[in-house]
Amino acid sequence: MSGSTFGKIFRVTSWGESHGPGLGAVVDGCPAGLPLKASDIQAFLDRRKPGQSSFATARKEADQVEILSGVFEGKTTGTPISLLVRNTDQRSRDYGNLAEAYRPGHADYCFEAKYGFRDYRGGGRSSGRETLCRVAAGAIASKILERLNIRVQAYARAIGPVEIKTFDPEQISRNPFCMPDAQAAQKAREYLEQCKKNQDSAGGVAECAIWNCPPGAGDPVFDKLDAQLAKALMSIGAVKAVEVGNGTKAAVSCGSQNNDGFHWDAEGALIKTSNYAGGILGGISDGSPILLRAYIKPTPSIARPQATADKNGENIRLRIHGRHDPVIVPRAVVVVESMAAITLADALLCGMGARMEYLEKIWKR
Amino acid sequence: MSGSTFGKIFRVTSWGESHGPGLGAVVDGCPAGLPLKASDIQAFLDRRKPGQSSFATARKEADQVEILSGVFEGKTTGTPISLLVRNTDQRSRDYGNLAEAYRPGHADYCFEAKYGFRDYRGGGRSSGRETLCRVAAGAIASKILERLNIRVQAYARAIGPVEIKTFDPEQISRNPFCMPDAQAAQKAREYLEQCKKNQDSAGGVAECAIWNCPPGAGDPVFDKLDAQLAKALMSIGAVKAVEVGNGTKAAVSCGSQNNDGFHWDAEGALIKTSNYAGGILGGISDGSPILLRAYIKPTPSIARPQATADKNGENIRLRIHGRHDPVIVPRAVVVVESMAAITLADALLCGMGARMEYLEKIWKR
Amino acid sequence: MSGSTFGKIFRVTSWGESHGPGLGAVVDGCPAGLPLKASDIQAFLDRRKPGQSSFATARKEADQVEILSGVFEGKTTGTPISLLVRNTDQRSRDYGNLAEAYRPGHADYCFEAKYGFRDYRGGGRSSGRETLCRVAAGAIASKILERLNIRVQAYARAIGPVEIKTFDPEQISRNPFCMPDAQAAQKAREYLEQCKKNQDSAGGVAECAIWNCPPGAGDPVFDKLDAQLAKALMSIGAVKAVEVGNGTKAAVSCGSQNNDGFHWDAEGALIKTSNYAGGILGGISDGSPILLRAYIKPTPSIARPQATADKNGENIRLRIHGRHDPVIVPRAVVVVESMAAITLADALLCGMGARMEYLEKIWKR
Amino acid sequence: MSGSTFGKIFRVTSWGESHGPGLGAVVDGCPAGLPLKASDIQAFLDRRKPGQSSFATARKEADQVEILSGVFEGKTTGTPISLLVRNTDQRSRDYGNLAEAYRPGHADYCFEAKYGFRDYRGGGRSSGRETLCRVAAGAIASKILERLNIRVQAYARAIGPVEIKTFDPEQISRNPFCMPDAQAAQKAREYLEQCKKNQDSAGGVAECAIWNCPPGAGDPVFDKLDAQLAKALMSIGAVKAVEVGNGTKAAVSCGSQNNDGFHWDAEGALIKTSNYAGGILGGISDGSPILLRAYIKPTPSIARPQATADKNGENIRLRIHGRHDPVIVPRAVVVVESMAAITLADALLCGMGARMEYLEKIWKR
Repeated sequence: MSGSTFGKIFRVTSWGESHGPGLGAVVDGCPAGLPLKASDIQAFLDRRKPGQSSFATARKEADQVEILSGVFEGKTTGTPISLLVRNTDQRSRDYGNLAEAYRPGHADYCFEAKYGFRDYRGGGRSSGRETLCRVAAGAIASKILERLNIRVQAYARAIGPVEIKTFDPEQISRNPFCMPDAQAAQKAREYLEQCKKNQDSAGGVAECAIWNCPPGAGDPVFDKLDAQLAKALMSIGAVKAVEVGNGTKAAVSCGSQNNDGFHWDAEGALIKTSNYAGGILGGISDGSPILLRAYIKPTPSIARPQATADKNGENIRLRIHGRHDPVIVPRAVVVVESMAAITLADALLCGMGARMEYLEKIWKR
Repeated sequence: MSGSTFGKIFRVTSWGESHGPGLGAVVDGCPAGLPLKASDIQAFLDRRKPGQSSFATARKEADQVEILSGVFEGKTTGTPISLLVRNTDQRSRDYGNLAEAYRPGHADYCFEAKYGFRDYRGGGRSSGRETLCRVAAGAIASKILERLNIRVQAYARAIGPVEIKTFDPEQISRNPFCMPDAQAAQKAREYLEQCKKNQDSAGGVAECAIWNCPPGAGDPVFDKLDAQLAKALMSIGAVKAVEVGNGTKAAVSCGSQNNDGFHWDAEGALIKTSNYAGGILGGISDGSPILLRAYIKPTPSIARPQATADKNGENIRLRIHGRHDPVIVPRAVVVVESMAAITLADALLCGMGARMEYLEKIWKR
Repeated sequence: MSGSTFGKIFRVTSWGESHGPGLGAVVDGCPAGLPLKASDIQAFLDRRKPGQSSFATARKEADQVEILSGVFEGKTTGTPISLLVRNTDQRSRDYGNLAEAYRPGHADYCFEAKYGFRDYRGGGRSSGRETLCRVAAGAIASKILERLNIRVQAYARAIGPVEIKTFDPEQISRNPFCMPDAQAAQKAREYLEQCKKNQDSAGGVAECAIWNCPPGAGDPVFDKLDAQLAKALMSIGAVKAVEVGNGTKAAVSCGSQNNDGFHWDAEGALIKTSNYAGGILGGISDGSPILLRAYIKPTPSIARPQATADKNGENIRLRIHGRHDPVIVPRAVVVVESMAAITLADALLCGMGARMEYLEKIWKR
Repeated sequence: MSGSTFGKIFRVTSWGESHGPGLGAVVDGCPAGLPLKASDIQAFLDRRKPGQSSFATARKEADQVEILSGVFEGKTTGTPISLLVRNTDQRSRDYGNLAEAYRPGHADYCFEAKYGFRDYRGGGRSSGRETLCRVAAGAIASKILERLNIRVQAYARAIGPVEIKTFDPEQISRNPFCMPDAQAAQKAREYLEQCKKNQDSAGGVAECAIWNCPPGAGDPVFDKLDAQLAKALMSIGAVKAVEVGNGTKAAVSCGSQNNDGFHWDAEGALIKTSNYAGGILGGISDGSPILLRAYIKPTPSIARPQATADKNGENIRLRIHGRHDPVIVPRAVVVVESMAAITLADALLCGMGARMEYLEKIWKR
């Protein structure tokens, strides 16, 4: 309970179920004076909208956002920004036969064990639809970062076993998988065709880069920037592993390989000669690009029959009907980007009081 | 700033620097009535103590803990438990020549960028010594879990490229690497000998299992159990990746492989027929063992000279003297275990109010 | 910023402005299994609705609440409950001439000083309308307490200088002032007639009693029950003083008068022989009725012309038009009751883990 | 439980019991670069030290503070500042006969009801000695405010029924009651002589003024500056009422009297023509002096025999021996001042991100 708020100063509260009246977020602590309009948020929501290709669920989700508060004459006022998206196309009958089953790979049983009963319509709160709350809030966080010349960009690094070999940012929006590599995208398409034929699903990897983040963000020892980012990403439904920088590879490296040296360049700027650390040292941003990876499990809802149990003590054979993504990675990309942006915006706001001289700059009179 | 407290109800505040008067933790929110004595905590601290083998720093750290509050007549009182460990063997002269350098792989530059200056003595707050605060608090969390018949156990899964092949829990305490596989431990020894000869260091993987955790722990959508654990583990100095269950492997699996089916067994108990999820579904414990992995980078302090920069604008060649662990994984094992225990104890306390019937059980009169 | 959430486990997030599209609250951390329907909340909102007498603003505020999430088949699910009230009758033209003025007794100048500009329509976020967010959430908290046999009741103790002399709970709903004393209500009416004639306004005192609160609620030393209640009440717009028990009178009492003795009664129950403490000792409920008082300033918007300044550097003479309550105490009564209920519900939830035996009761297996 | 931390960014964690090894505080989130030495803190602690007159307990409490972390080369580093005060003169035998009794006006029964048992030595955690943790932290907060040219000053406004008539700041340190009125101090002395003769005790009022606070501090709607201050002050053991500005008097004023007009003065500065609001409007500082009052109950420990109950079901007649202050107001003055300073320092730190332009000033590159 009460785990639906993220952030200390830039605070995002997520609410809503897949089959209730709607979903939304309240963003408290957004600085005043940020230009913001509904279309800024809509643009983000549209990036996670399904029905954009044959590899995403055919459900139509209009996902029109309404700003209910916190914006006046086109600018944020410093008061809570409430965002609402009405559900329109729930078709709860699709899920009727699942009311008693514990679907493999889903949270059905866990919700019931925790709360004593559950909203069985399409996953309720654990539905992927919840991520639209994050994306709506992420759009605002991204606007803040943009004003500080910081750019956050996520994309698919892998779909199932198909990994990117090149990085061409132009490609990201040109294929339905958000892959920065046209050839990999083509292979991903073939892989997913096969998955669908097998009534099966695929996972993958979303990668996120943060460009031009100033050094100094993150609060050791528990609220380190990488720790907060790990929480942010792992809190996304299907994520099973999170990496920073060279991640798991660091474990098999030697110190002499893994250490990034510092260097004063010809212009007198301090740079790092490599970036295995992924832009964070000791939990604080070091000025290099921040590099994150989220490993995403295959969609648990598959058409193929599965052996499982129901709440009445029966072992059953379950067929899940309904419209489900064969892979969620492409839609998760903007969710990862949003959570990264939210986390960084909060870290920057928390870091405003790191030095007495900053306080004096704002408050002394 | 103000990132030194972890947990919502079971709250651990860590303080102290490697070369100041001491370090410690305040544990607030520990339930009353838990039997606790200094030796319970000392036993945990002794597990992270250096100087226990030739593969750990030769510094002697007595690390005697004193309980300053919160315990009366052998039991916790429900009030904050303050723990103090005095520093005794700092030898700050060892670090004198590093006061101006930005050591590769260390947080020197980041602390300076954030705070305007830094405590240059042995890493100050970003020193590995800070982890003793976590271990002291982890000992208390473990005592709580023990009373609920929950057991948390961490061990080394890999040292550098050497991975365990078998799991014999008896072995964990029988080799200096905390490996549950005697043969792997022997190979790890050889690998580290080579590292030392090369004036280099190694990383590795700490794995942690939580046995008999009841279903229902964890608070979606942001304070999911796996999200909190990811934060907890990633907040440990050298961790660069965190996995739950089959982790990164999930990304290349198909749904039909990765989904764990539920099953009512002969005794009428609900079990899972596999545990790829690692005991957590939808951010809530599912009753199966919880499985975590922390990927740890190689010790950044190596004897080999390194190219880096200093604060005066000079590019320098740095030799780090002093006594440093060639690998910190064995000492990190108890830190990982402690952070997992702290996280779970907090999740269980937060979950006490998940149902009206629980409230009625405690408060109705 | 980010000050719009109250509570640690039972968390209420308030959002919305008087003249935006709507207002609402997200209640996170409500235990699952609580029967709840919109009419439960509507009943509370109706108690603060204006237009119910000639002593409240003539604005019509329909204030129809919609539950957007967190309730399924008539019961709370343990997930966030989102509540929405659309604004319908804002008439922002009424406020047009105030866009540049700093109204005396209002927060106009403060919002501008803090955020750089402000929503000048009817007070924006500092409008009394924001209290409907609290009342909507308070209705839910009250339902929780009701199930624990705890009753929270607020009423007007004084309107301007007119104080109650008797306490007849039946009377509270029988006069427009929520006074438990018919004669005092009559005098209050006369007093307010005079105020209106003078184009002036009145303040008063709201009192709140909590019956049958079990001993043990409240978390010293900072989150004491009385400290949290003081914050809760002082956070209501017009409150300028908060008392617990005999309050300010304690300061002039002697210890021998002010101390409440304990006593085992004939049935073997522990009672207090007096209740000067108002049901809270050392910040923890003692089992006696909890007694609170909130002192409320006169409505700052008065028809009488006032000398003040505007943002352009001019000293002006200001006439405030529009429809304003000559006294807000009667409408504040349910707000005080709601904040008290929210605070206590949260304290009870936080206190669930006070003892190891409680944890064992819920989690041991 | 877990109620021992105050503040969101400037976070104070208090720990320790009157008769354990010691007490202390951890101050996390203090900006880096603040000059700080133990004597700064000692000066504050000395102001609350008992044994300074015949009207305070004769216990000798050396109360020597030690800074254990967070300060390097005379300046704060931005990391947690841990403060320790060892207990030296506990004489726990004094309290032996109270182990089973529920002392009137004390929290004995409440702690037992909450936690199942209690530390019966001198009140344990609910002892007035806990306030030294607050004062130690308050000294640091005051140093921060001082650098921003903000001054916090508390004093005794009343001792029992004796109220000050004049305000001469010079007098505050010249009488043992911290009264800014020499004549009132003389009368207070006489009143207390009488109390002691009667084996009784007195209460009083501590008042606190904050000078030169910039407008804009405080975060509506729940973390309003006055709400946080009310919590801060009410969390001090013996406080039973808190007022801001004209406080309870506002309730009997008319709007036309109570409203403070704004005015541009000859120098072009915006001032208020009166300050009934006490420097806070809508929960945000308005630039005028902030005025607070804490009403303090009489010391509950009195020598006179009292009727009460014990934990064994007996109604008893209790004599409390030991050394107790006949009035705690003079010693509470610095506690009130400290809590006010802590609250304001935190509010200023939280307010650093109120505007996008502030963020740009610190973080844009």
